[in-house]
Amino acid sequence: MECCLASLLRAPSVSIFLPSKSSRRSSSLRLRQLVGFHASRCQKMFVPGFGEASPEAKAAANLHHFFTFVAIKISYNREAYEELMEFVSRNSLNDGDQFCRRLMRESPRHKGLALRIMEVRSAYSKRDFEWDNLQKLAHKMVDESNTRLMRDYVKETSHIEDN
Amino acid sequence: MECCLASLLRAPSVSIFLPSKSSRRSSSLRLRQLVGFHASRCQKMFVPGFGEASPEAKAAANLHHFFTFVAIKISYNREAYEELMEFVSRNSLNDGDQFCRRLMRESPRHKGLALRIMEVRSAYSKRDFEWDNLQKLAHKMVDESNTRLMRDYVKETSHIEDN
Repeated sequence: MECCLASLLRAPSVSIFLPSKSSRRSSSLRLRQLVGFHASRCQKMFVPGFGEASPEAKAAANLHHFFTFVAIKISYNREAYEELMEFVSRNSLNDGDQFCRRLMRESPRHKGLALRIMEVRSAYSKRDFEWDNLQKLAHKMVDESNTRLMRDYVKETSHIEDN
Repeated sequence: MECCLASLLRAPSVSIFLPSKSSRRSSSLRLRQLVGFHASRCQKMFVPGFGEASPEAKAAANLHHFFTFVAIKISYNREAYEELMEFVSRNSLNDGDQFCRRLMRESPRHKGLALRIMEVRSAYSKRDFEWDNLQKLAHKMVDESNTRLMRDYVKETSHIEDN
């Protein structure tokens, strides 16, 4: 997520894009439906710098690597621990797919581990990972962070003493 | 997400944890309900190495920084572009809250930008970001990646020629 910020930040400036309300006033029902659909889509804030992809795709790609990492942690066991640790120390986990690709080609035993990790990341992301909880936690986090940042700033800049 | 992998990987080995079915056989309905609830929770794969937090909390924290980054991109406009670019070049975006904290204290104009970014990240994460789409894309990604990895491996190791 962080490593590509520098390259993405070189995009040109764009502010919030909201279509004018007048664009919805049309006599044709078909046209109104079309314009209404278009307007409802465009009322979202436009996020520049993601090219063909979307912020959702970018976030999904990061979660994909995260799920591989989680699957590796789940897959540690007494037999595989040393072997997997040794391989992890030599190979970056930043790209989950690249990691699995290399692991498969290391040895027949490593191939077994790679297949297990691929199976686990699929099962984990589809069955165990709590997507609703993720959303709830992210909403809570933004509220709490914003409140804390503003409260700290006000505390620092106001000079009312508590007695 | 990637930066803390090394520290997290020092956890001890644990494999998939599934409670035995016999633990559910209880004569008391109340106990059965309790055990049933416990069993249904524990049938999830145990992910070691997250301490008090959960994988969902870890992923939410990363999404939180990502939303700050998206809010900065949305907040670029003709007036703020130079100012914000200059500030971004001097301050890391890895921690979204730390970035906002510093931006607020830079100058009264920068404070205005920080408040806008905080407002935008809240609105974006709650209203615009497509959570369902994120889940759908992540599921698709794991399926496609696993298929591709296995297909590539089979292609490499099999010696059947096309003609």
